[in-house]
Amino acid sequence: MPQLPMLQVALDNQTLSDAYNTTRLIAEEVDIIEVGTILCVGEGVRAVRDLKALYPHKIVLADAKIADAGKILSRMCFEANADWVTVICCADINTAAGALAVAREFDGDVQIELTGFWTWEQAEAWRAAGIQQVVYHRSRDAQAAGVAWSETDISAIKRLAEMGFKVTVTGGLALDDLPLFQGIPIHVFIAGRSIRDAASTVDAAREFKRRIAQLWG
Amino acid sequence: MPQLPMLQVALDNQTLSDAYNTTRLIAEEVDIIEVGTILCVGEGVRAVRDLKALYPHKIVLADAKIADAGKILSRMCFEANADWVTVICCADINTAAGALAVAREFDGDVQIELTGFWTWEQAEAWRAAGIQQVVYHRSRDAQAAGVAWSETDISAIKRLAEMGFKVTVTGGLALDDLPLFQGIPIHVFIAGRSIRDAASTVDAAREFKRRIAQLWG
Repeated sequence: MPQLPMLQVALDNQTLSDAYNTTRLIAEEVDIIEVGTILCVGEGVRAVRDLKALYPHKIVLADAKIADAGKILSRMCFEANADWVTVICCADINTAAGALAVAREFDGDVQIELTGFWTWEQAEAWRAAGIQQVVYHRSRDAQAAGVAWSETDISAIKRLAEMGFKVTVTGGLALDDLPLFQGIPIHVFIAGRSIRDAASTVDAAREFKRRIAQLWG
Repeated sequence: MPQLPMLQVALDNQTLSDAYNTTRLIAEEVDIIEVGTILCVGEGVRAVRDLKALYPHKIVLADAKIADAGKILSRMCFEANADWVTVICCADINTAAGALAVAREFDGDVQIELTGFWTWEQAEAWRAAGIQQVVYHRSRDAQAAGVAWSETDISAIKRLAEMGFKVTVTGGLALDDLPLFQGIPIHVFIAGRSIRDAASTVDAAREFKRRIAQLWG
């Protein structure tokens, strides 16, 4: 039986207290708790520390989108007990490699966040540097500008998986979008607003898990 | 008489208390106080609010390196009384445009942070979107890998200035590097470790100002 894609909730709240309104309800429904960039900026690395303290049995991801100073910033996150951190795609390869070296000290991992402009040449360099995870991100601002999931997105995700990356998919992902990815070994799906803003967040999270099990089980 | 390049101190400390060790000495010596990405991650947006409260007559820059959610993240920074915020170069053009729209509400400004991979085609798009400032950044990790200021750096900075950008220059900038940029209308020089780690931070900052006045005066 193939491994099911995991479910990640993105906490893009400005304050921890606001994030807790979500996590107290659905932390147990998801596999990965993401300290979103907005929460990182709002509360600083303390958000990572407090969320991992509350939910130690969950994977806690710091979406710090590290662009430089890879070792220092990733160490700050891992010392606050993050399991995974993100590095932004335009970062120098030394930044990604530095973050990965620190991650390994902590038995953690690094994801390259594919937000905005990147190239396949870079993707090869990430693989060569030992990076195993990427986050395929339909930009929030691109979404707002009306750009939908396209065949270009799907084939890029397929190609990344074929290169050996564990691929996380995100960017205004709705339940009805899931069939688009069927047949691709997706590592993680991130749901943000479609879970947080649902009438029942618990039902929305469970419905995501059910659809994933149907499509990948 | 031409406008002299301004001097910016980068506070890349992990805590505000650590940053204050620098600012209490040299806030009055510099034009711009940068809340570095490390400090943004360490303390969150509170770092911006507290530093602007302490030094209201200085330009306070939030080096948030916004990659997505341009409106939300820039609003968080401007509501905390930032004067300028940074957007990372690989961000979607809508992210930069969104941050700029919010900046204008607050009479603030947006800088595109040229860390890592970017193209001249993007630079044209930034100009077209109304972006006026860029930060030419020699990557910290590239520095650590032994990459020095090169003719490529200098000519890129010149070309950006010719395109009409106000250019900030940073990346392990030492006093002896300043003559490399003579003749180019640099908007801001950022000094981080070369001021913070000097035997006398005040003397180091004043020496920077003196050299700038000599070379651009």
